[in-house]
Amino acid sequence: MSAPVVALVGKPDCGKTTLLEKLIPEFNGCGYRIGTIKHHVHEFSFPVDTPGKDTWRHKQAGAHTVVLSSPIGIGVVCDTERDLGIDELVTRYFSEVDLVIAEGYKRSNLPKIEVYRRQIHPEPLAGRNQSWIAMVTDDPEAAGTLESGLPCFGSGQVREIADFLAGRFLGRPSSSGAACRRSFIQLEVNGKPIPLNRFVASFVRRSLKGMITSLRGCDRPRHIRIIISDDEQSPQGPSDRRS
Amino acid sequence: MSAPVVALVGKPDCGKTTLLEKLIPEFNGCGYRIGTIKHHVHEFSFPVDTPGKDTWRHKQAGAHTVVLSSPIGIGVVCDTERDLGIDELVTRYFSEVDLVIAEGYKRSNLPKIEVYRRQIHPEPLAGRNQSWIAMVTDDPEAAGTLESGLPCFGSGQVREIADFLAGRFLGRPSSSGAACRRSFIQLEVNGKPIPLNRFVASFVRRSLKGMITSLRGCDRPRHIRIIISDDEQSPQGPSDRRS
Repeated sequence: MSAPVVALVGKPDCGKTTLLEKLIPEFNGCGYRIGTIKHHVHEFSFPVDTPGKDTWRHKQAGAHTVVLSSPIGIGVVCDTERDLGIDELVTRYFSEVDLVIAEGYKRSNLPKIEVYRRQIHPEPLAGRNQSWIAMVTDDPEAAGTLESGLPCFGSGQVREIADFLAGRFLGRPSSSGAACRRSFIQLEVNGKPIPLNRFVASFVRRSLKGMITSLRGCDRPRHIRIIISDDEQSPQGPSDRRS
Repeated sequence: MSAPVVALVGKPDCGKTTLLEKLIPEFNGCGYRIGTIKHHVHEFSFPVDTPGKDTWRHKQAGAHTVVLSSPIGIGVVCDTERDLGIDELVTRYFSEVDLVIAEGYKRSNLPKIEVYRRQIHPEPLAGRNQSWIAMVTDDPEAAGTLESGLPCFGSGQVREIADFLAGRFLGRPSSSGAACRRSFIQLEVNGKPIPLNRFVASFVRRSLKGMITSLRGCDRPRHIRIIISDDEQSPQGPSDRRS
Protein backbone atom coordinates (compact mmCIF):
# COMPACT_ATOMS: atom_id res chain seq x y z
CA MET A 1 0.00 0.00 0.00
CA SER A 2 1.35 3.42 -0.94
CA ALA A 3 2.11 6.01 1.70
CA PRO A 4 -0.38 8.90 1.93
CA VAL A 5 0.81 12.21 0.47
CA VAL A 6 0.07 15.77 1.57
CA ALA A 7 1.34 18.89 -0.17
CA LEU A 8 2.69 21.92 1.64
CA VAL A 9 1.93 24.86 -0.64
CA GLY A 10 2.41 28.62 -0.56
CA LYS A 11 4.31 31.37 -2.30
CA PRO A 12 8.13 31.22 -2.34
CA ASP A 13 9.70 32.31 0.97
CA CYS A 14 6.48 31.92 2.94
CA GLY A 15 8.10 29.39 5.28
CA LYS A 16 7.23 25.97 3.80
CA THR A 17 10.68 24.47 4.30
CA THR A 18 11.00 25.97 7.77
CA LEU A 19 7.69 24.40 8.81
CA LEU A 20 8.72 21.08 7.26
CA GLU A 21 11.98 21.17 9.21
CA LYS A 22 9.97 21.37 12.41
CA LEU A 23 7.30 18.84 11.42
CA ILE A 24 9.75 16.07 10.50
CA PRO A 25 11.36 15.77 13.99
CA GLU A 26 7.89 15.93 15.55
CA PHE A 27 6.85 12.85 13.55
CA ASN A 28 10.22 11.15 14.03
CA GLY A 29 9.90 11.62 17.77
CA CYS A 30 6.75 9.50 17.57
CA GLY A 31 8.37 6.80 15.49
CA TYR A 32 6.90 7.80 12.13
CA ARG A 33 9.05 7.88 9.05
CA ILE A 34 8.57 10.86 6.80
CA GLY A 35 9.43 11.12 3.13
CA THR A 36 9.66 14.44 1.28
CA ILE A 37 9.45 15.40 -2.38
CA LYS A 38 10.50 18.59 -4.02
CA HIS A 39 9.76 19.24 -7.66
CA HIS A 40 11.83 21.29 -10.07
CA VAL A 41 9.88 22.49 -13.07
CA HIS A 42 13.01 23.15 -15.06
CA GLU A 43 16.17 21.25 -15.72
CA PHE A 44 18.32 20.92 -12.69
CA SER A 45 21.61 19.40 -11.92
CA PHE A 46 21.35 17.18 -8.89
CA PRO A 47 24.77 17.06 -7.33
CA VAL A 48 25.49 13.35 -7.01
CA ASP A 49 28.29 13.14 -4.51
CA THR A 50 31.06 15.68 -4.24
CA PRO A 51 32.67 16.80 -7.52
CA GLY A 52 35.67 14.60 -8.23
CA LYS A 53 34.41 11.62 -6.22
CA ASP A 54 33.84 8.31 -7.99
CA THR A 55 30.06 8.39 -8.31
CA TRP A 56 30.19 11.99 -9.46
CA ARG A 57 32.63 10.90 -12.16
CA HIS A 58 30.30 8.04 -13.19
CA LYS A 59 27.41 10.47 -13.71
CA GLN A 60 29.57 12.99 -15.52
CA ALA A 61 30.71 10.23 -17.86
CA GLY A 62 27.09 9.64 -18.83
CA ALA A 63 25.77 6.83 -16.61
CA HIS A 64 21.96 6.73 -16.72
CA THR A 65 21.61 5.65 -13.09
CA VAL A 66 24.20 5.95 -10.33
CA VAL A 67 23.75 4.36 -6.92
CA LEU A 68 25.90 4.90 -3.85
CA SER A 69 25.12 2.26 -1.26
CA SER A 70 26.16 1.90 2.37
CA PRO A 71 24.91 0.09 5.48
CA ILE A 72 23.02 3.18 6.64
CA GLY A 73 21.97 5.06 3.55
CA ILE A 74 21.49 4.95 -0.21
CA GLY A 75 21.86 7.71 -2.76
CA VAL A 76 20.50 7.46 -6.29
CA VAL A 77 20.65 9.79 -9.25
CA CYS A 78 19.04 8.82 -12.55
CA ASP A 79 17.93 10.31 -15.83
CA THR A 80 14.29 10.39 -16.77
CA GLU A 81 12.58 10.90 -20.10
CA ARG A 82 9.62 12.75 -18.61
CA ASP A 83 8.29 14.37 -15.49
CA LEU A 84 7.18 11.48 -13.29
CA GLY A 85 3.83 11.88 -11.56
CA ILE A 86 3.63 11.92 -7.80
CA ASP A 87 1.95 8.50 -7.69
CA GLU A 88 4.77 6.96 -9.67
CA LEU A 89 7.42 8.58 -7.46
CA VAL A 90 5.66 7.40 -4.30
CA THR A 91 5.40 3.82 -5.58
CA ARG A 92 9.01 3.77 -6.69
CA TYR A 93 10.75 5.43 -3.80
CA PHE A 94 8.57 5.74 -0.71
CA SER A 95 7.73 2.14 0.19
CA GLU A 96 9.37 2.51 3.59
CA VAL A 97 7.77 5.70 4.90
CA ASP A 98 4.51 6.38 6.72
CA LEU A 99 3.70 9.78 5.21
CA VAL A 100 5.04 11.76 2.27
CA ILE A 101 5.08 15.54 2.50
CA ALA A 102 5.50 17.24 -0.86
CA GLU A 103 6.81 20.77 -1.03
CA GLY A 104 4.96 22.57 -3.80
CA TYR A 105 2.70 20.67 -6.19
CA LYS A 106 0.08 23.37 -5.76
CA ARG A 107 -1.50 22.51 -9.12
CA SER A 108 -1.91 18.85 -8.22
CA ASN A 109 -5.04 17.39 -6.70
CA LEU A 110 -3.13 16.33 -3.58
CA PRO A 111 -4.63 17.39 -0.24
CA LYS A 112 -2.93 20.67 0.65
CA ILE A 113 -1.86 22.67 3.64
CA GLU A 114 -1.09 26.26 2.78
CA VAL A 115 1.53 28.32 4.55
CA TYR A 116 0.54 31.96 4.24
CA ARG A 117 2.30 35.22 5.07
CA ARG A 118 0.75 38.52 4.12
CA GLN A 119 4.20 40.12 3.79
CA ILE A 120 4.87 37.75 0.89
CA HIS A 121 1.57 37.82 -0.95
CA PRO A 122 -1.65 39.81 -0.49
CA GLU A 123 -3.98 36.83 -0.83
CA PRO A 124 -3.80 33.20 0.25
CA LEU A 125 -4.04 30.57 -2.49
CA ALA A 126 -6.63 28.65 -0.49
CA GLY A 127 -10.15 28.06 -1.66
CA ARG A 128 -9.16 27.52 -5.28
CA ASN A 129 -10.62 24.07 -5.04
CA GLN A 130 -11.63 21.39 -2.57
CA SER A 131 -8.13 20.02 -2.08
CA TRP A 132 -7.16 22.54 0.63
CA ILE A 133 -7.37 20.94 4.06
CA ALA A 134 -5.76 23.52 6.39
CA MET A 135 -3.98 26.87 6.65
CA VAL A 136 -0.86 27.78 8.59
CA THR A 137 -0.59 31.50 9.16
CA ASP A 138 0.35 34.00 11.84
CA ASP A 139 -1.90 36.59 10.27
CA PRO A 140 -5.02 36.77 12.46
CA GLU A 141 -6.88 38.67 9.79
CA ALA A 142 -6.22 36.06 7.12
CA ALA A 143 -7.15 33.37 9.61
CA GLY A 144 -10.33 35.17 10.59
CA THR A 145 -11.54 36.14 7.17
CA LEU A 146 -11.10 32.76 5.60
CA GLU A 147 -14.54 31.96 4.38
CA SER A 148 -13.60 28.44 3.56
CA GLY A 149 -13.85 27.35 7.19
CA LEU A 150 -10.52 25.56 6.91
CA PRO A 151 -8.72 24.51 10.10
CA CYS A 152 -6.14 27.19 10.83
CA PHE A 153 -2.87 26.85 12.77
CA GLY A 154 -0.21 29.30 13.84
CA SER A 155 3.26 28.61 12.47
CA GLY A 156 4.44 27.69 15.97
CA GLN A 157 1.74 25.04 16.48
CA VAL A 158 3.95 22.28 15.15
CA ARG A 159 2.65 19.55 17.45
CA GLU A 160 -0.95 20.49 16.64
CA ILE A 161 -0.26 20.40 12.91
CA ALA A 162 1.47 17.00 13.29
CA ASP A 163 -1.50 15.70 15.28
CA PHE A 164 -3.91 16.99 12.66
CA LEU A 165 -1.95 15.21 9.91
CA ALA A 166 -1.62 12.03 11.99
CA GLY A 167 -5.37 12.04 12.55
CA ARG A 168 -6.11 12.61 8.91
CA PHE A 169 -3.53 10.39 7.21
CA LEU A 170 -2.20 7.88 9.72
CA GLY A 171 -5.44 6.70 11.21
CA ARG A 172 -4.71 8.14 14.68
CA PRO A 173 -6.99 10.42 16.62
CA SER A 174 -5.92 14.02 16.40
CA SER A 175 -5.61 14.29 20.14
CA SER A 176 -3.23 16.35 22.19
CA GLY A 177 0.02 14.52 22.72
CA ALA A 178 1.26 13.13 19.46
CA ALA A 179 0.01 9.78 18.23
CA CYS A 180 2.96 7.42 18.25
CA ARG A 181 3.66 4.21 16.50
CA ARG A 182 7.07 2.62 16.28
CA SER A 183 9.45 1.91 19.10
CA PHE A 184 11.23 5.16 19.77
CA ILE A 185 13.19 7.06 22.34
CA GLN A 186 13.07 10.74 23.20
CA LEU A 187 15.76 12.34 25.30
CA GLU A 188 15.43 15.78 26.75
CA VAL A 189 18.24 17.33 28.75
CA ASN A 190 17.77 20.58 30.64
CA GLY A 191 14.54 21.12 28.78
CA LYS A 192 16.16 20.75 25.37
CA PRO A 193 15.44 17.81 23.06
CA ILE A 194 18.62 15.88 22.22
CA PRO A 195 18.58 14.19 18.83
CA LEU A 196 19.98 10.65 18.93
CA ASN A 197 21.22 8.89 15.86
CA ARG A 198 19.96 5.39 15.21
CA PHE A 199 22.91 3.62 16.81
CA VAL A 200 22.93 5.68 19.96
CA ALA A 201 19.13 5.46 20.22
CA SER A 202 19.27 1.68 19.88
CA PHE A 203 22.14 1.40 22.38
CA VAL A 204 20.39 3.53 25.01
CA ARG A 205 17.01 1.86 24.48
CA ARG A 206 18.40 -1.66 24.74
CA SER A 207 20.64 -0.87 27.69
CA LEU A 208 17.74 0.63 29.65
CA LYS A 209 15.37 -2.17 28.74
CA GLY A 210 17.98 -4.71 29.84
CA MET A 211 18.46 -2.91 33.13
CA ILE A 212 14.76 -2.59 33.85
CA THR A 213 13.93 -6.15 32.88
CA SER A 214 15.93 -7.36 35.88
CA LEU A 215 13.67 -5.44 38.30
CA ARG A 216 10.86 -7.33 39.94
CA GLY A 217 7.59 -7.12 37.95
CA CYS A 218 9.30 -5.50 34.96
CA ASP A 219 10.11 -8.49 32.82
CA ARG A 220 8.25 -7.12 29.81
CA PRO A 221 8.85 -3.38 29.76
CA ARG A 222 7.08 -1.77 26.81
CA HIS A 223 6.71 1.84 27.79
CA ILE A 224 9.42 3.30 29.96
CA ARG A 225 9.43 6.84 31.25
CA ILE A 226 12.41 7.96 33.27
CA ILE A 227 12.93 11.44 34.57
CA ILE A 228 16.17 12.14 36.33
CA SER A 229 16.64 15.42 38.08
CA ASP A 230 19.32 16.69 40.38
CA ASP A 231 17.37 19.86 40.81
CA GLU A 232 15.59 20.35 44.15
CA GLN A 233 12.83 22.21 42.29
CA SER A 234 12.02 19.45 39.80
CA PRO A 235 8.86 20.46 38.00
CA GLN A 236 7.77 16.82 37.85
CA GLY A 237 7.59 16.57 41.61
CA PRO A 238 9.52 14.25 43.90
CA SER A 239 7.56 11.09 43.07
CA ASP A 240 9.21 10.89 39.65
CA ARG A 241 12.73 11.52 40.89
CA ARG A 242 15.56 9.10 40.58
CA SER A 243 19.09 10.06 41.40
CA MET B 1 14.02 -8.88 -16.08
CA SER B 2 16.92 -7.50 -14.10
CA ALA B 3 19.86 -5.88 -15.83
CA PRO B 4 23.07 -7.95 -15.87
CA VAL B 5 25.80 -6.83 -13.48
CA VAL B 6 29.57 -6.94 -13.83
CA ALA B 7 32.04 -5.83 -11.18
CA LEU B 8 35.15 -3.80 -11.89
CA VAL B 9 37.64 -4.80 -9.19
CA GLY B 10 41.19 -3.96 -8.26
CA LYS B 11 43.22 -2.27 -5.56
CA PRO B 12 42.52 1.39 -4.79
CA ASP B 13 44.03 3.80 -7.33
CA CYS B 14 44.51 1.10 -9.96
CA GLY B 15 42.31 2.98 -12.45
CA LYS B 16 38.84 1.47 -12.04
CA THR B 17 36.98 4.79 -12.15
CA THR B 18 39.11 6.05 -15.03
CA LEU B 19 38.29 2.94 -17.07
CA LEU B 20 34.62 3.26 -16.17
CA GLU B 21 34.64 6.89 -17.32
CA LYS B 22 35.80 5.70 -20.73
CA LEU B 23 33.53 2.66 -20.95
CA ILE B 24 30.29 4.54 -20.21
CA PRO B 25 30.49 6.88 -23.26
CA GLU B 26 31.50 3.91 -25.41
CA PHE B 27 28.25 2.14 -24.46
CA ASN B 28 26.20 5.35 -24.62
CA GLY B 29 27.49 5.96 -28.14
CA CYS B 30 25.86 2.68 -29.09
CA GLY B 31 22.58 3.50 -27.42
CA TYR B 32 23.07 1.37 -24.31
CA ARG B 33 22.18 2.74 -20.92
CA ILE B 34 24.67 2.03 -18.18
CA GLY B 35 24.03 2.01 -14.47
CA THR B 36 26.80 2.13 -11.88
CA ILE B 37 27.00 1.17 -8.22
CA LYS B 38 29.60 2.11 -5.69
CA HIS B 39 29.57 0.58 -2.23
CA HIS B 40 30.74 2.23 0.96
CA VAL B 41 31.56 -0.25 3.68
CA HIS B 42 31.33 2.37 6.39
CA GLU B 43 28.86 5.08 7.22
CA PHE B 44 28.87 7.83 4.71
CA SER B 45 27.08 11.06 4.29
CA PHE B 46 25.61 11.30 0.81
CA PRO B 47 25.31 14.97 0.00
CA VAL B 48 21.69 15.38 -1.04
CA ASP B 49 21.60 18.66 -2.86
CA THR B 50 23.72 21.64 -1.92
CA PRO B 51 23.88 22.53 1.80
CA GLY B 52 21.18 25.05 2.59
CA LYS B 53 18.88 24.04 -0.27
CA ASP B 54 15.40 22.75 0.51
CA THR B 55 15.95 19.02 0.05
CA TRP B 56 19.19 19.21 2.01
CA ARG B 57 17.23 20.83 4.84
CA HIS B 58 14.58 18.07 4.66
CA LYS B 59 17.23 15.38 5.11
CA GLN B 60 19.00 17.30 7.87
CA ALA B 61 15.67 17.57 9.69
CA GLY B 62 15.44 13.78 9.70
CA ALA B 63 13.37 12.77 6.66
CA HIS B 64 13.80 9.04 5.95
CA THR B 65 13.56 9.47 2.17
CA VAL B 66 14.04 12.65 0.16
CA VAL B 67 13.28 12.87 -3.55
CA LEU B 68 14.13 15.71 -5.87
CA SER B 69 12.23 15.32 -9.11
CA SER B 70 12.48 17.16 -12.43
CA PRO B 71 11.56 16.51 -16.06
CA ILE B 72 15.06 15.25 -16.83
CA GLY B 73 16.41 13.69 -13.66
CA ILE B 74 15.59 12.33 -10.24
CA GLY B 75 17.66 12.35 -7.09
CA VAL B 76 16.89 10.17 -4.08
CA VAL B 77 18.50 9.84 -0.69
CA CYS B 78 17.12 7.42 1.87
CA ASP B 79 18.03 5.71 5.10
CA THR B 80 18.45 1.98 5.26
CA GLU B 81 18.51 -0.43 8.19
CA ARG B 82 21.04 -2.76 6.60
CA ASP B 83 23.44 -3.15 3.75
CA LEU B 84 21.27 -3.97 0.74
CA GLY B 85 22.51 -6.76 -1.50
CA ILE B 86 23.38 -6.07 -5.09
CA ASP B 87 20.33 -8.00 -6.37
CA GLU B 88 18.00 -5.88 -4.27
CA LEU B 89 19.66 -2.65 -5.44
CA VAL B 90 19.42 -3.72 -9.07
CA THR B 91 15.74 -4.63 -8.76
CA ARG B 92 14.93 -1.38 -6.97
CA TYR B 93 16.87 1.13 -8.96
CA PHE B 94 18.14 -0.22 -12.27
CA SER B 95 14.99 -1.17 -14.15
CA GLU B 96 15.82 1.25 -16.96
CA VAL B 97 19.40 0.33 -17.76
CA ASP B 98 20.92 -2.34 -20.00
CA LEU B 99 24.00 -3.15 -17.95
CA VAL B 100 25.10 -2.35 -14.41
CA ILE B 101 28.80 -1.91 -13.72
CA ALA B 102 29.67 -2.12 -10.03
CA GLU B 103 32.87 -0.56 -8.77
CA GLY B 104 34.29 -2.80 -6.12
CA TYR B 105 32.31 -5.75 -4.75
CA LYS B 106 35.38 -7.93 -5.05
CA ARG B 107 34.09 -10.34 -2.38
CA SER B 108 30.79 -10.87 -4.21
CA ASN B 109 30.16 -13.68 -6.65
CA LEU B 110 29.50 -11.20 -9.47
CA PRO B 111 31.44 -11.76 -12.70
CA LYS B 112 34.56 -9.62 -12.41
CA ILE B 113 36.96 -7.67 -14.55
CA GLU B 114 40.14 -6.79 -12.73
CA VAL B 115 42.11 -3.64 -13.38
CA TYR B 116 45.71 -4.35 -12.42
CA ARG B 117 48.77 -2.12 -12.07
CA ARG B 118 52.00 -3.54 -10.71
CA GLN B 119 52.97 -0.14 -9.30
CA ILE B 120 49.98 -0.40 -6.98
CA HIS B 121 50.15 -4.00 -5.89
CA PRO B 122 52.64 -6.83 -6.53
CA GLU B 123 50.01 -9.43 -7.38
CA PRO B 124 46.69 -9.34 -9.23
CA LEU B 125 43.63 -10.47 -7.29
CA ALA B 126 42.58 -12.67 -10.21
CA GLY B 127 42.27 -16.40 -9.98
CA ARG B 128 40.84 -16.38 -6.47
CA ASN B 129 37.77 -18.07 -7.83
CA GLN B 130 35.86 -18.69 -11.01
CA SER B 131 34.11 -15.34 -11.06
CA TRP B 132 36.98 -13.50 -12.83
CA ILE B 133 36.18 -13.06 -16.52
CA ALA B 134 38.93 -10.72 -17.76
CA MET B 135 41.96 -8.62 -16.85
CA VAL B 136 42.79 -5.06 -17.83
CA THR B 137 46.46 -4.31 -17.43
CA ASP B 138 49.30 -2.55 -19.18
CA ASP B 139 51.81 -4.85 -17.55
CA PRO B 140 52.87 -7.35 -20.23
CA GLU B 141 54.41 -9.60 -17.65
CA ALA B 142 51.23 -9.81 -15.60
CA ALA B 143 49.30 -10.37 -18.80
CA GLY B 144 51.71 -13.06 -19.96
CA THR B 145 52.15 -14.97 -16.75
CA LEU B 146 48.47 -15.23 -15.94
CA GLU B 147 47.94 -18.93 -15.72
CA SER B 148 44.23 -18.49 -15.57
CA GLY B 149 43.97 -18.01 -19.31
CA LEU B 150 41.69 -14.99 -18.76
CA PRO B 151 41.09 -12.61 -21.65
CA CYS B 152 43.46 -9.69 -21.19
CA PHE B 153 43.06 -6.11 -22.42
CA GLY B 154 45.28 -3.04 -22.31
CA SER B 155 43.80 -0.09 -20.45
CA GLY B 156 43.47 1.79 -23.76
CA GLN B 157 41.41 -0.95 -25.43
CA VAL B 158 38.14 0.61 -24.35
CA ARG B 159 36.17 -0.36 -27.44
CA GLU B 160 37.43 -3.95 -27.21
CA ILE B 161 36.47 -4.16 -23.54
CA ALA B 162 33.01 -2.73 -24.34
CA ASP B 163 32.60 -5.26 -27.17
CA PHE B 164 33.66 -8.08 -24.86
CA LEU B 165 31.08 -7.00 -22.27
CA ALA B 166 28.37 -6.49 -24.92
CA GLY B 167 29.05 -9.98 -26.25
CA ARG B 168 28.96 -11.50 -22.82
CA PHE B 169 26.08 -9.63 -21.19
CA LEU B 170 24.00 -7.98 -23.87
CA GLY B 171 23.65 -10.87 -26.27
CA ARG B 172 25.64 -9.19 -29.04
CA PRO B 173 28.59 -10.70 -30.83
CA SER B 174 31.85 -9.36 -29.52
CA SER B 175 32.90 -8.18 -32.94
CA SER B 176 34.94 -5.18 -33.92
CA GLY B 177 32.74 -2.13 -34.21
CA ALA B 178 30.53 -1.84 -31.20
CA ALA B 179 27.21 -3.63 -31.07
CA CYS B 180 24.49 -1.02 -31.03
CA ARG B 181 20.90 -1.04 -29.98
CA ARG B 182 18.79 2.02 -29.43
CA SER B 183 18.28 4.93 -31.75
CA PHE B 184 21.33 7.08 -31.26
CA ILE B 185 23.43 9.78 -32.85
CA GLN B 186 27.18 10.13 -32.87
CA LEU B 187 28.82 13.36 -33.90
CA GLU B 188 32.49 13.64 -34.56
CA VAL B 189 34.06 16.94 -35.49
CA ASN B 190 37.65 17.16 -36.66
CA GLY B 191 38.20 13.62 -35.48
CA LYS B 192 36.96 14.37 -31.99
CA PRO B 193 33.72 12.92 -30.58
CA ILE B 194 31.29 15.66 -29.53
CA PRO B 195 28.98 14.70 -26.68
CA LEU B 196 25.38 15.81 -27.27
CA ASN B 197 22.89 16.14 -24.50
CA ARG B 198 19.51 14.51 -24.98
CA PHE B 199 17.76 17.63 -26.24
CA VAL B 200 20.40 18.55 -28.76
CA ALA B 201 20.70 14.92 -29.87
CA SER B 202 16.95 14.69 -30.35
CA PHE B 203 16.82 18.04 -32.17
CA VAL B 204 19.64 17.12 -34.57
CA ARG B 205 18.31 13.60 -35.16
CA ARG B 206 14.77 14.74 -35.87
CA SER B 207 15.83 17.68 -38.02
CA LEU B 208 18.04 15.46 -40.18
CA LYS B 209 15.40 12.74 -40.43
CA GLY B 210 12.82 15.33 -41.46
CA MET B 211 15.18 16.74 -44.09
CA ILE B 212 16.08 13.34 -45.51
CA THR B 213 12.51 12.05 -45.55
CA SER B 214 11.69 14.62 -48.20
CA LEU B 215 14.30 13.15 -50.57
CA ARG B 216 13.10 10.70 -53.18
CA GLY B 217 13.28 7.08 -51.94
CA CYS B 218 14.08 8.14 -48.39
CA ASP B 219 10.65 8.18 -46.84
CA ARG B 220 11.63 5.78 -44.08
CA PRO B 221 15.18 6.59 -43.08
CA ARG B 222 16.40 4.28 -40.32
CA HIS B 223 20.16 4.40 -40.58
CA ILE B 224 21.67 7.66 -41.70
CA ARG B 225 25.35 8.24 -42.12
CA ILE B 226 26.52 11.67 -43.13
CA ILE B 227 30.08 12.72 -43.46
CA ILE B 228 30.75 16.32 -44.25
CA SER B 229 34.22 17.41 -45.06
CA ASP B 230 35.62 20.64 -46.37
CA ASP B 231 39.03 19.07 -46.40
CA GLU B 232 40.44 18.07 -49.80
CA GLN B 233 42.21 15.18 -48.07
CA SER B 234 39.11 13.64 -46.49
CA PRO B 235 40.14 10.26 -45.06
CA GLN B 236 36.72 8.87 -46.01
CA GLY B 237 37.29 9.44 -49.71
CA PRO B 238 35.33 11.65 -52.06
CA SER B 239 32.35 9.28 -52.41
CA ASP B 240 31.20 10.06 -48.90
CA ARG B 241 31.56 13.79 -49.21
CA ARG B 242 28.74 16.26 -48.98
CA SER B 243 29.38 19.93 -48.77
